[in-house]
Amino acid sequence: MTTLLLGITAWDPEPWRTRFQNALPGWTVVLDTEAYDPAAISYAAAWKQREGAFSALPNLKAIFSLGAGVDHLFKDKKLPDGVPIVRVVDPDLTTRMSEYVVMHCLMALRRVRVYDRFQRERSWTDLRDQPQASDIRVGLLGTGQLGQDAAMKLGVMGFKVAGWSRRPKEIAGVEMFHGDEGLAAIAAVSDILVAILPLTPDTAGFLNAGLFNHMPKAEAIGGPVLINVGRGGLQVEADILAALDSGKLGAAVLDVFETEPLPATSPLWLHPKVTVTPHNSAISSPPAIAAYVAGQILAAERGEPLTNVVDPKHGY
Amino acid sequence: MTTLLLGITAWDPEPWRTRFQNALPGWTVVLDTEAYDPAAISYAAAWKQREGAFSALPNLKAIFSLGAGVDHLFKDKKLPDGVPIVRVVDPDLTTRMSEYVVMHCLMALRRVRVYDRFQRERSWTDLRDQPQASDIRVGLLGTGQLGQDAAMKLGVMGFKVAGWSRRPKEIAGVEMFHGDEGLAAIAAVSDILVAILPLTPDTAGFLNAGLFNHMPKAEAIGGPVLINVGRGGLQVEADILAALDSGKLGAAVLDVFETEPLPATSPLWLHPKVTVTPHNSAISSPPAIAAYVAGQILAAERGEPLTNVVDPKHGY
Repeated sequence: MTTLLLGITAWDPEPWRTRFQNALPGWTVVLDTEAYDPAAISYAAAWKQREGAFSALPNLKAIFSLGAGVDHLFKDKKLPDGVPIVRVVDPDLTTRMSEYVVMHCLMALRRVRVYDRFQRERSWTDLRDQPQASDIRVGLLGTGQLGQDAAMKLGVMGFKVAGWSRRPKEIAGVEMFHGDEGLAAIAAVSDILVAILPLTPDTAGFLNAGLFNHMPKAEAIGGPVLINVGRGGLQVEADILAALDSGKLGAAVLDVFETEPLPATSPLWLHPKVTVTPHNSAISSPPAIAAYVAGQILAAERGEPLTNVVDPKHGY
Repeated sequence: MTTLLLGITAWDPEPWRTRFQNALPGWTVVLDTEAYDPAAISYAAAWKQREGAFSALPNLKAIFSLGAGVDHLFKDKKLPDGVPIVRVVDPDLTTRMSEYVVMHCLMALRRVRVYDRFQRERSWTDLRDQPQASDIRVGLLGTGQLGQDAAMKLGVMGFKVAGWSRRPKEIAGVEMFHGDEGLAAIAAVSDILVAILPLTPDTAGFLNAGLFNHMPKAEAIGGPVLINVGRGGLQVEADILAALDSGKLGAAVLDVFETEPLPATSPLWLHPKVTVTPHNSAISSPPAIAAYVAGQILAAERGEPLTNVVDPKHGY
């Protein structure tokens, strides 16, 4: 008997059980809060699992994250060594992330927040010298599958695109930077900087005053713009607020926060240069994720290699 | 001696004279308000020319519009018969128009106006069941060069795309409709309807209650959306307001108006479901237009055929 174990907190696990049950006919699907035989578990799927939920499963072949990030998995100090951790990279999630990134780059380019203000003032005012997309460079911090899809679509819309990755990498049509020294260099040429990175010990607090100080004046769009669709832990919110108030940053579009939900007391909520969204830049639908993970499990059972396996050394 | 006549009102003609003078070395560039020899004029370029400005030019070979539309030219009852009228279709203008159209389609898809309200209320609220672009069909009323570029880019972002033209036409990847009967049919399948049409006697008042009544409920995006980037004369503003208030339309994004500038008394300004922009969806830069028109003139002088010549029967 083949069994999938679900380790889910923060979400209701029952709809997930139903989805997996439908996608894996003949399998048993159990929750970690139920009684089960540890030796029967061959796969686990997790969203913010309880510490140690997967620590004593002798026949576990892989653990799947039910979201794009895996930082929630690594918080578990009792995560078993040597079991592959697999990320969800479904096309649904990728498409949604690019929708959000391209839209907010276009909104920065076309000065939507300024024209909204003119509208509230009933003022028929046209800013002079509207740049076009090809005058503006978007720097993508993170060039995995999500970053590459966004790069392609930003390119189609006419933007210049730069990319940064930890290790050297080449992507057609994208000016690439890498490593610590590459970070200051990409910031220096990016009118809009988009963080689309995983949270790891290396990237924590990575979006800070030191980085913003490298950015260009970007006067054509009212100052440089920061977009964070990665993880809240990437950003230093006090530095973002100070940079907005000093004019070093022109605007910030934040989908993720140091603390989520964003506390009502945060000055980010009502800051005129900040757009806040509730960590929804790329929610893929639960049915799509379950279908993706179930498909990966069945492929592994047929002997095919797992895809999007996380390198625990790098945390993504 | 070769001479270009400029018939320009509403804009300062002097910078245009300088641009054309630079782009056409050795030519004479005159304004219609100056003294000149009518027989010396071989080309004219116009923006809202004075009535009759081009009526007595025996050697006139072509008249160029300095914007994408030519309706302003045809308002002149003394426009000479048989002289080709040429539209500007420069890539700069096309790119900007697509920026605006794709951005506002994405903003409708991703419910930006709703999330803006949540932000003002400091409410960490995620709408459930966010559709993705492939769930939403954008109908383009107008499939000339501007419409085709927008169609391609909307397709890259994942939207389903339909198109309408007066006469039958085929465009790869676009579900096409045509003629009067096709108009109701495209409205019936379009969650977002984008008017990117010229103003002609056939299209005047074309965006009205009768058309909106054919549109689907489009509940996934809070009701169907109208975007007009063509001409204000296409729309019946009283019908748009009534449709927004009855819930027949979910939102309207208007770059053009029956009267421009939009009068301060218009209820469109402060309507919560309306986005107003000051007819700037696709302003190409004057230097780019002058370079484009000068290039067309020099090509015509080399004996090459004019491109984007308007069919006076259809008005575009």
